[in-house]
Amino acid sequence: MEQLRTHIEKIVPLSDEEFASISSCFTYRKYKKHQFLIQHGDTVSYNYFVLKGLLKLVYTDDGGKEHIVGFAMEDWWETDFPAYYQSKKATMSLECVEDTEVLCLSLEDYRKIVSTHPKMEHFFLEKAYMGFIAAQQRIISTMTTGIKERYEQLLEKHPSLIQRVPKSLLAAYLGVSRETLSRLPL
Amino acid sequence: MEQLRTHIEKIVPLSDEEFASISSCFTYRKYKKHQFLIQHGDTVSYNYFVLKGLLKLVYTDDGGKEHIVGFAMEDWWETDFPAYYQSKKATMSLECVEDTEVLCLSLEDYRKIVSTHPKMEHFFLEKAYMGFIAAQQRIISTMTTGIKERYEQLLEKHPSLIQRVPKSLLAAYLGVSRETLSRLPL
Repeated sequence: MEQLRTHIEKIVPLSDEEFASISSCFTYRKYKKHQFLIQHGDTVSYNYFVLKGLLKLVYTDDGGKEHIVGFAMEDWWETDFPAYYQSKKATMSLECVEDTEVLCLSLEDYRKIVSTHPKMEHFFLEKAYMGFIAAQQRIISTMTTGIKERYEQLLEKHPSLIQRVPKSLLAAYLGVSRETLSRLPL
Repeated sequence: MEQLRTHIEKIVPLSDEEFASISSCFTYRKYKKHQFLIQHGDTVSYNYFVLKGLLKLVYTDDGGKEHIVGFAMEDWWETDFPAYYQSKKATMSLECVEDTEVLCLSLEDYRKIVSTHPKMEHFFLEKAYMGFIAAQQRIISTMTTGIKERYEQLLEKHPSLIQRVPKSLLAAYLGVSRETLSRLPL
């Protein structure tokens, strides 16, 4: 749990009692590569904090083609957020790219944390702002930038992610075929 | 200010005293069609709550082409958020599509509001989550859906927006030329 505490305390300092109360709301789970944390159509029970490993958030279109909405590795949060927060069925799936360990937070426990520790709303607000900024920058990048430049931006921003993610998944994230990505002078 | 109170109270109930304290942090401004609230390269002083009118948030690429990142009309918030929140120079511009009235909130006053009224963090957190969900859905829609379907989704979600926005701006939002949009069987 020390990893979670370090992560939260980058934004909000906590006493030992506060952290004990907050951490009691999380449950630890371990998954093997290729296992699903969320499957399309499921009820989404948890938001996941990644302790170790790598996840992909996937939207599958009507033709069965997989589009990668996002990756998540150590210290990132990931879930089908609209389904989690609005208690709807999942429209995306969340799958392990590597063996992965997570801390799971249910919506009920999330609400308990923010009502018991109002300063944790500040923590989640910072995370939400950063998520919004990243999503908006991805929209702008998709509208204005070629695949090569987007690959290079990703490499600059998250060098370790690029090393760990298979090229076929990178292609599905960038919205090109594996062949097109291979042909780029990278 | 009653419009702002109704807007906030959809999420967080306020006493008269609380609302008086919060509303004193906003300043009213009125702009004419084509006026800029933010210009690329500016310091971004405010987040804007739209009372009346219509704004476009624009990213201009190196070739001088305008891409519309978002629109904002009555009861929407808009700014160059990364520049506002991280005190950087604007990479986008915010311009009036119609004569527009706004309430302006500086970052300093935002911080004053959330520190004096912690429940307002809950209000801004809800807004941030909805902004993140909308941005993520736009990413998915761009990856998976054709222009015609995206136009129809926009029409379904925001019918009044479609009526008010000139077709050339809709094209710049959807990422196609005005001519391509005209040729679609809409």
